[in-house]
Amino acid sequence: MTAALHSAEQAPVGRARHGGRAGKRAGGASAFEQAPFRQLKIPFAPTRLVSDDELESIHVASLRVLRDIGVDVLHEGARKIMKEHGAAVREGVERVHFDSDMILELIAHAPSEFTVHARNPAHNVRFGGNNVTIAMMASAPNCSDIDSGRRPGNQADYRNFLRLAQMHNIIHCMGGYPVEPIDIHPSVRHLECIRDLATLTDKAFHIYSLGKERNVDGIEIARIARGISREQMLDEPSVFTIINTNSPLKLDVPMMEGIIQMSSAGQVVVVTPFTLSGAMAPVTIAGALVQQNAEALAGIAFSQMVRKGAPVAYGGFTSNVDMKSGAPAFGTPEYMKAQLIGGQLARRYNVPYRTSNTCAANTVDAQAAYESVFSLWGAIQGGGNMMMHAAGWLEGGLRCSYEKTILDIDMLQMVAEFLTPLDLSDDALGFEAIRDVGPGGHFFGTQHTQNRYKTAFYSPIVSDWRNFETWAEAGSPTAVEKANRVWKERLATYEKPHMDPAIAEELDAFVEKRRLEGGAPTDF
Amino acid sequence: MTAALHSAEQAPVGRARHGGRAGKRAGGASAFEQAPFRQLKIPFAPTRLVSDDELESIHVASLRVLRDIGVDVLHEGARKIMKEHGAAVREGVERVHFDSDMILELIAHAPSEFTVHARNPAHNVRFGGNNVTIAMMASAPNCSDIDSGRRPGNQADYRNFLRLAQMHNIIHCMGGYPVEPIDIHPSVRHLECIRDLATLTDKAFHIYSLGKERNVDGIEIARIARGISREQMLDEPSVFTIINTNSPLKLDVPMMEGIIQMSSAGQVVVVTPFTLSGAMAPVTIAGALVQQNAEALAGIAFSQMVRKGAPVAYGGFTSNVDMKSGAPAFGTPEYMKAQLIGGQLARRYNVPYRTSNTCAANTVDAQAAYESVFSLWGAIQGGGNMMMHAAGWLEGGLRCSYEKTILDIDMLQMVAEFLTPLDLSDDALGFEAIRDVGPGGHFFGTQHTQNRYKTAFYSPIVSDWRNFETWAEAGSPTAVEKANRVWKERLATYEKPHMDPAIAEELDAFVEKRRLEGGAPTDF
Repeated sequence: MTAALHSAEQAPVGRARHGGRAGKRAGGASAFEQAPFRQLKIPFAPTRLVSDDELESIHVASLRVLRDIGVDVLHEGARKIMKEHGAAVREGVERVHFDSDMILELIAHAPSEFTVHARNPAHNVRFGGNNVTIAMMASAPNCSDIDSGRRPGNQADYRNFLRLAQMHNIIHCMGGYPVEPIDIHPSVRHLECIRDLATLTDKAFHIYSLGKERNVDGIEIARIARGISREQMLDEPSVFTIINTNSPLKLDVPMMEGIIQMSSAGQVVVVTPFTLSGAMAPVTIAGALVQQNAEALAGIAFSQMVRKGAPVAYGGFTSNVDMKSGAPAFGTPEYMKAQLIGGQLARRYNVPYRTSNTCAANTVDAQAAYESVFSLWGAIQGGGNMMMHAAGWLEGGLRCSYEKTILDIDMLQMVAEFLTPLDLSDDALGFEAIRDVGPGGHFFGTQHTQNRYKTAFYSPIVSDWRNFETWAEAGSPTAVEKANRVWKERLATYEKPHMDPAIAEELDAFVEKRRLEGGAPTDF
Repeated sequence: MTAALHSAEQAPVGRARHGGRAGKRAGGASAFEQAPFRQLKIPFAPTRLVSDDELESIHVASLRVLRDIGVDVLHEGARKIMKEHGAAVREGVERVHFDSDMILELIAHAPSEFTVHARNPAHNVRFGGNNVTIAMMASAPNCSDIDSGRRPGNQADYRNFLRLAQMHNIIHCMGGYPVEPIDIHPSVRHLECIRDLATLTDKAFHIYSLGKERNVDGIEIARIARGISREQMLDEPSVFTIINTNSPLKLDVPMMEGIIQMSSAGQVVVVTPFTLSGAMAPVTIAGALVQQNAEALAGIAFSQMVRKGAPVAYGGFTSNVDMKSGAPAFGTPEYMKAQLIGGQLARRYNVPYRTSNTCAANTVDAQAAYESVFSLWGAIQGGGNMMMHAAGWLEGGLRCSYEKTILDIDMLQMVAEFLTPLDLSDDALGFEAIRDVGPGGHFFGTQHTQNRYKTAFYSPIVSDWRNFETWAEAGSPTAVEKANRVWKERLATYEKPHMDPAIAEELDAFVEKRRLEGGAPTDF
């Protein structure tokens, strides 16, 4: 390498923290090097793992499940709505059967693509089409870092994960609570947590469907944070909720209530059957997909009964279990297949497709990485539009890890770079550069290289590309140790995004009022 | 998990070593659980990263490079052959220019698909079409395991890697010497090494093009091992060689001699330009691909000048360098893009496409895994037909690792499972199973599950799916520790594949004769 190139190296990340000018945020620039916030798009056709005929066989079987087996719907009001729309509902009986034409007619009303609005409009995201929107990990009961180990979720860690997600442009939205802060009473937890989502981040976020009050409060906090009217909220989805069916074929009260509240308010519902093949779904991936599809169609159709045109997405979460222990497995070949075919199904119904970045590893080792990249492979080649749990996920979702968060951010940034269209201009094709260098020469010092070398290639966060000797002299650090250093450095540079003081005051007043009212029931 | 399923767990790998019947090889079965040797096929269309027009711009620019810039050909005899076929060659001048029509006319003679024959016909492999053939890592100067650390290549480790490659059905062929045994004198190293390839394994193998004698000896050893005539060898490719051009645009004496010897003998040539973007190729991936394509076309066309119809493959190895240090990087987003477009180019010319499974990591950590899986992603979605360096690669190719070998074997087996077509029979679609279980039930105990659970899902070698508490009690093992245990267990069960004693004798006699003649010159 020439000395010229060497000396032009980017300022190290740490410099920002020692009072240098680079540490000051100018116009929203971050204290470390990263690509700007941008909507990712998949530039190629998703991979079709099965033929159209094979896909149709899954589709047909799932319609047969809805018609002949039916679904248990525990919410009486939901059954009433279903009956009004032609489903076979009998008084006092939970089991509901759905006519195939009715299902297909309803899902045809679901929009193929829509914008989810953040309080910072620069952070609005698009669901559907060839867009990829990336969400932070959600719902872990535990968290960890390699300094302090594994611990139950709590507010301090919860807030730190929000800060990390806010700082990194590759995280487009918040998928829920990265870790469940169990040190906040459940009756008011959603108020505190959603206020944090709306203030520590300025990105779009998820709210949990755990009873009507929590949905209503969440939508209201998002509305206040955006400073808009209820009418505008109805036309501009600003929050989303994941509806995990109780597989097999059961839709419980909170999830039906969630669809009613969210769809009627024009907010986003992501119907995601939790179909683990061999446990809550057939041991065959084809069968698990039949069941996933039946449950997803039931939920999507219901959202359209509540409000035609309500934004909704098709969630795929089919994986297999370890047949020796019953433990869920992730990032497996079976999981990849399910992701690809899930995408084919979602596109058949012309609705956005939700995927995940998951693993079953207990530590940030090679297993955590390969299971995650296999997940990403399936998600991206499957044409996934919205990726949940994209950063931080460990232990099959039981833990959000600080180091895994950084590792995932790096891997996601690599995926984003992979998806960035290649420059194929004449200048990029480089005939002149090849001619100037000629046979036997080298390209380090050429003008063509000098003009581009700073931004030519993705510069990884975690990867250690030093030669063995230099790396060994530095103490043979592994990827997880590098990630540990990085999250602490980056978190130290966090700055709370701007919020109009009047809005902050209104938000606090609302939360205070709802706290005094007792928050939400905790009998769920 | 039910006790019934639990007790039916597969016999642990280790049992074979304690004298149990499972340890005996019956009909070629191995001492551990693995899928049978089988030709992998990609069941979906490869990903087209660039449009046909964009691909054409690379194609056109590369033909312009060959015509207007030319290539330095250091081998006088090769220049003579090129001149006879219409290339612009001037007496005493190394630079050769190629007419575009001539290049295209020549490469049209290259076969799109062919079989490479192993001495065990059950291990024959197919190059081209939608086939994927997987080769062990090759050419590392160093090797390592976590017990004894990093060390220069030597015969004992060399043989161990051959044994591991032979034992694992996912490794279809031998890509060369997994590690260079520098304790054998270079003049006879090829004789010892190729005899080991032909006796410790019964799979097809690579021979190095490092002077005429080594090519001739390698072909002869393969012929003796197969027990066939020279005429039959001409029609049945049994060895392959990698020709790495001296990028940019230089073809040296041993590589030209290699093509002459191999193509004239009907053996396989894999032309693989070593085009590191920013070093030996333009800093733009588009430019590096233009150069890769020009060099590959020159080599492929030359093979067809030597013998029309000679089996040849298009090798893609374009990656980027770390612009801070000049070190090569692997498994990067740029590498993935180059792999996909390399595949589009190879398919444009209707020749088999060679890829690799690479990383730059210094240890078997998360980085080693994510860089490798990103490589696999690019290789498979790029429609790669033949994957070099598939198991063992660390440190940008400077080291073959025992633990990485096991990790890669596990990941490759996952890829193989991913590529296995999904069962979409009525029985697999599982309507009856879903009906029998019904809403709110579970599938663990159903007959549908009982009939399938043993083989329903890929059972990983390395992945640890125990819950956190059990895993922590077991000492919190990481993936590399598991891999360390596995390679030792497996190597202990190695059995040399059968060889007819008369053939073994003929082989030894040939090697002895060539040793006495002094082997091959060492002035390369």
